[in-house]
Order: sequence, then structure tokens, then C-alpha cells
Amino acid sequence: MKLLRYGPAGREKPGLLDGEGRIRDLSGHVPDIDARCLSADGLAALATLSPESLPIIEGEPRLGTPLTGIGKFIAIGLNYADHAAESNLPIPKEPVVFTKAISSLSGPNDPVMLPKDSVKGDWEVELGIVIGKRAAYVEEAQALDHVAGYCLVNDVSEREYQIERGGTWDKGKGCDTFGPIGPWLVTADEVGDPQNLDMWLDLNGRRMQTGNTRTMIFGCAHIVSYLSRFMTLMPGDVVTTGTPPGVGMGIKPEPVFLKAGDVMTLGIEKLGSQRQDVVSWRRGEG
Amino acid sequence: MKLLRYGPAGREKPGLLDGEGRIRDLSGHVPDIDARCLSADGLAALATLSPESLPIIEGEPRLGTPLTGIGKFIAIGLNYADHAAESNLPIPKEPVVFTKAISSLSGPNDPVMLPKDSVKGDWEVELGIVIGKRAAYVEEAQALDHVAGYCLVNDVSEREYQIERGGTWDKGKGCDTFGPIGPWLVTADEVGDPQNLDMWLDLNGRRMQTGNTRTMIFGCAHIVSYLSRFMTLMPGDVVTTGTPPGVGMGIKPEPVFLKAGDVMTLGIEKLGSQRQDVVSWRRGEG
Repeated sequence: MKLLRYGPAGREKPGLLDGEGRIRDLSGHVPDIDARCLSADGLAALATLSPESLPIIEGEPRLGTPLTGIGKFIAIGLNYADHAAESNLPIPKEPVVFTKAISSLSGPNDPVMLPKDSVKGDWEVELGIVIGKRAAYVEEAQALDHVAGYCLVNDVSEREYQIERGGTWDKGKGCDTFGPIGPWLVTADEVGDPQNLDMWLDLNGRRMQTGNTRTMIFGCAHIVSYLSRFMTLMPGDVVTTGTPPGVGMGIKPEPVFLKAGDVMTLGIEKLGSQRQDVVSWRRGEG
Repeated sequence: MKLLRYGPAGREKPGLLDGEGRIRDLSGHVPDIDARCLSADGLAALATLSPESLPIIEGEPRLGTPLTGIGKFIAIGLNYADHAAESNLPIPKEPVVFTKAISSLSGPNDPVMLPKDSVKGDWEVELGIVIGKRAAYVEEAQALDHVAGYCLVNDVSEREYQIERGGTWDKGKGCDTFGPIGPWLVTADEVGDPQNLDMWLDLNGRRMQTGNTRTMIFGCAHIVSYLSRFMTLMPGDVVTTGTPPGVGMGIKPEPVFLKAGDVMTLGIEKLGSQRQDVVSWRRGEG
């Protein structure tokens, strides 16, 4: 299934995408796409519904984050060997973990707003894992049993804030609008092997990132197992798993950073695509 | 006011502490202590209630976190000059920011569970700021207008996970039970100047930390203003502001780390005290 949430920000309704790419309304069946839906039972109940029996939503409504009630938005850094190299950082011996602020979450096609005085905004196409079942000290072999599905993430970053302002990376990763996720939460059964998905990102129509999840240093099962030793993962938590090469700060001879008017488009095989207009900071919107 | 939540974990009810130190039930007036209560209007409405008119709760119920619906649990590192020195780290030029996982939150007197195989558990008495009003790009002079109140925090840490496992500090700060907060959310009017509060922590009855919030490198108003440039602070967010000297890893000639059976007691002037039994990891509880 491809689960989604549609409508104005803060007033989204639950839906799913049918086989013809039309949005079908789920609000007669569940109040929202949240932790309760993401359990094995919750997903099984949704899977019994015939999409044809659900109301079609006409037009092209805005899409919100494909789930709500996200408790933690955890991120893995430097998880593609080539990206570590372009960042001039060694390949990590174990996963690098940081946190994106919950308040950075936004819809897949909402504008990305550069913070006031930001000069080093950057992009990162990533595979996001959506947890469906509480995970504490789970073994790698069982880890994917705790995954409800996957989604596309743009791990938008401000490199000066991340790297040059002291302390941990969280400062440059959690700005408002820096966490577009979606368009869909694609259930694990429909994705199959999460370690064989092509991914790409274009800036203003020019291909910047090309990769495949098979070149992750630490795969999804390892990441879930690893994280679950440091913190209990809860249904509705989202873990984004790192980016392949091609980010702006790695471009030679000079890095390229985001500016107002830029357009980012990105996608991952089976998970759909996103499109974000980059805008300047505006009071009242950030 | 001293707001609190009492009852079994996951089924807490809202309450307040009256002038005689008795718990009074607020559940006839608000569904819970959450973001809605923490606005100026919400707090003003609670302030109109006469504590004597509220039902007394007899006995000594467990206390939960004094608010719920916490979206972000942000922490400031190395914010007391002497603590930076004992950690062998330079005094930061600007606030060091990291994140504690929401799932680490626990009641003020709940046991602190060491993670499986943990060998470097440590304590940190801290002043927590509770945000009452959305804060984006606020000036330092207005920053405290966005604060609903304060609470005592034990920023429990695992130093091996924090420092020796690669990546950012978040790995050693967000383990389950590593975020006891409370006993109360004390409203800002009752606290007065947040930069003149004595604080202390004992391990097994022996004084380990002694400090006063006046020796913070970056005070509360600066921290709120600073953070609000990197992420919007929302009502119900909690920001913990760093610890004075005396943590276990700084003890000479050999550091002291937590072990099962230890008891931590800690307090901050006007904000009450906490008591935690340290226990070993047990399956199903972490």
C-alpha cells in the first residue's frame, strides 16, 4: 500500500494511492495515518479495504507528511562510502547518529525555506525507514520485522550551522522545512528488498545525486538493530539512512549551495518523488 | 504554580501542588498538562482556580513528567565553564546543541536503567526550560516571554556511547530512562530570575555536584534566542541547559560511573528534588 495524507497543512486527511495513481480517502476508516495504523494489525486492517470502494479525491491536493505523530526523527550520517569521501570525512566504524527536529518535518512538495542569513543550504536524497513496532535490543535478523514501510526524505542541511558552529550536527539539520518526507509511506511488503533501490536528486533540472541503496555502508536492518541498543524505537518513529554522493558541499572546484528560486526534485524507486521550491526566510513562516 | 502529573506511567492525571505541599487534582479543569495549558491564557486560566477548591490526592502517588506532548527535548552542552574544564573540552564560543530522544523521558523518581553492557553511566543536574509560546528568531530581550516555566532535569548520560562511539552525542544521551524531569513544572512568575538558583546532586548520599545557575556561560534568555534561529521552539518543548561541575567522568584520579544499586538525589532551588534508583538493564523494560 501507498499511504498518504492530503489537504492543507495541519488539516490533512488520511488516504491511499490506488493502482491508477488516484488518491482515495481513508478518513471513513482511520482518523489519521499514525502509530496505530502502522502495527501489523493496523496495516492488515487497511489491506482488507478495496481501494475501489474508497472515495476518489479529485484534483491535486497538497500532500502532507505521509504519517503524523512522529516521535523521533533520527538520521544516520556518512552512510555511503563515496559521500563520506566527498565530505572529507573517514568512513565510520559504526553508524553516525544525529537528530532532526520534529519541527523540521514538512510535506514532500512544500517549499524549503532557507533560514535567515543562511549561506550553505544543501540537499540530501535519502531512504527513510518508518517504524511500525516497538524495537528495543532487536537482532539484525529480526530488525525488519519492526519496519512498517519506507518513505523518501530530503535531509535538507545547512552546512555552516552543521559543521562550523560548534557542537553536534543537529544545529544544521533541524531548521523549519528541512525535513520533507513522502509523498507516500510505502508498506514494507510492497518495497521488498530495501537495499536495491535507485535514487536521484536534481537541482534546477540538473542531475546532482545518483545512487542506489545497495551501496549503504550500514543497511536498514543493521541500522534498526544498532539504534535499538541506544534508544527504544517506537511506532511512528522515522529513521533516515544517509545520502549518496553529489551534495552541494562536495562539488569541485567550488561547492554549490541552495539559493532562493532553486528547485529540488528527487526520487527513490518505488517511493515516488518530491519537488521543492527554495525560498528565502520570511517572518512568520519560520 | 507548581504543575505536575501523578499516577501510573501512561495514565497520569494533571495536578498542582498547593501551598502546604499537597497534590490537588486538576482533571476537572484540564485534560492534561500539555501545550494548551502552557500558553499565557492557559496558565492564566489555571491561576484563577483556588487550590483549596480542588480535590486533595491522598497518599504519595508516583509522579510522571510534569507535562506531556513534549515535541523536542533539546540540550545544551558544556554550559558551565568549570564543567567544560573537567571534561577536558574548551569553553564553547556559542551554545553546543544536542538532542535527547523523547523516549528517554521519565518521571522524576522513576528508576534509571543502565543500558545493556553500559559501563559509563553518569549524572548531570540541570535546569530545564519549558517553552510556552512559539519562538522563531526571538531577540534575547524578549526570549523569556516565550518561557512557561522551569523544571529540574537529570541529563543522564552514557559517556562511552556519547564520546567513544563516533558521531554526535545523541547516542549517549537518549537511552530509555535517561531523561527524568520534574517533580513540577514551576511557572516562570514563581521562579523569578532563572540565573540565580542553587543546584546540587548526591550519589549515594555523597555530594557530587554543587552549583548555581548564575555561572552558566549562556543564560536562559540567550539559549532560547539562539536556538530559535536554528529551529522553531514550540509550546511544550523542553530545553535543558547544561550541568555544573562534579559529573562522574571528571572525578580524579579515576572517574566514577553509575552501577546498579546506586541512588541519585538531586535538586534545584524552587524546583524541588528527584530521587532515582539505578538499575541494570532488564528485557522488556528498556
